[in-house]
Amino acid sequence: MDSIPQQGADAKDPRTGDADPGVAYDVFSRSCPSRRALENATGRWGALTLGALWEGTFRFNELRRRVDGVSEKMLSQTLHALERDGLVHREAQLVNPPRVDYGLTPLGRQVTERLIALIQCLEDNMGTVLASRDAYDARVGRGGR
Amino acid sequence: MDSIPQQGADAKDPRTGDADPGVAYDVFSRSCPSRRALENATGRWGALTLGALWEGTFRFNELRRRVDGVSEKMLSQTLHALERDGLVHREAQLVNPPRVDYGLTPLGRQVTERLIALIQCLEDNMGTVLASRDAYDARVGRGGR
Repeated sequence: MDSIPQQGADAKDPRTGDADPGVAYDVFSRSCPSRRALENATGRWGALTLGALWEGTFRFNELRRRVDGVSEKMLSQTLHALERDGLVHREAQLVNPPRVDYGLTPLGRQVTERLIALIQCLEDNMGTVLASRDAYDARVGRGGR
Repeated sequence: MDSIPQQGADAKDPRTGDADPGVAYDVFSRSCPSRRALENATGRWGALTLGALWEGTFRFNELRRRVDGVSEKMLSQTLHALERDGLVHREAQLVNPPRVDYGLTPLGRQVTERLIALIQCLEDNMGTVLASRDAYDARVGRGGR
């Protein structure tokens, strides 16, 4: 990021694959398409869906149980967005009744590996986070967390 | 994540710091406080705010320019949430006119280091993402990206 010129918004549309060294994307530019990719991968349900799929392939209803609290509609939208970005692979099995499995693509695995590291870091440090919340709430006089 | 027992929602509130090996947090449980911490750190503006602060300390208006598109209200809410979770440090300088600097705490740096790796991975692979979007839209007959 520090080293990337901020030309994301102005860069020509590459459509030529990964390897064009002349194009840099920048999530900080609101018009750069990488910003939406980041939002899809790290949004409220995107992150949990990718995290679940890190563990293996899932059918829709299995995934819905794993991502505790997601609605059918939101999970469906989330999966479509991640499939469109090439992070999730949807495979319809030719069986009766129809069966669809969701899994990570190779790029999805790369992204999710980094996401898992972030989740793990937060889970490992929740003691610090909760202590900070308590101190903050005591300072500004709010209850609850 | 694979190796952590899913007891986040049932775990006693530790309030004893990081090192309690008997408590595991799990972002997949909707009642686990780690889920909100993840949302704060990876939400639409949280991720970009942390990413910007990776580059150094910023004053509010500098940060607002860097995080292209954020409103004053959303940036303020985002900073409060990240400060409450202990990822961002707010330092009021005793000068006239008043001056406030925002920076990352040590925990904020740990989390943001992983977030930057994720952002970098997406930026580096946007060629693949855009090609996938095109193919998806051609398949389902939608225009635009």
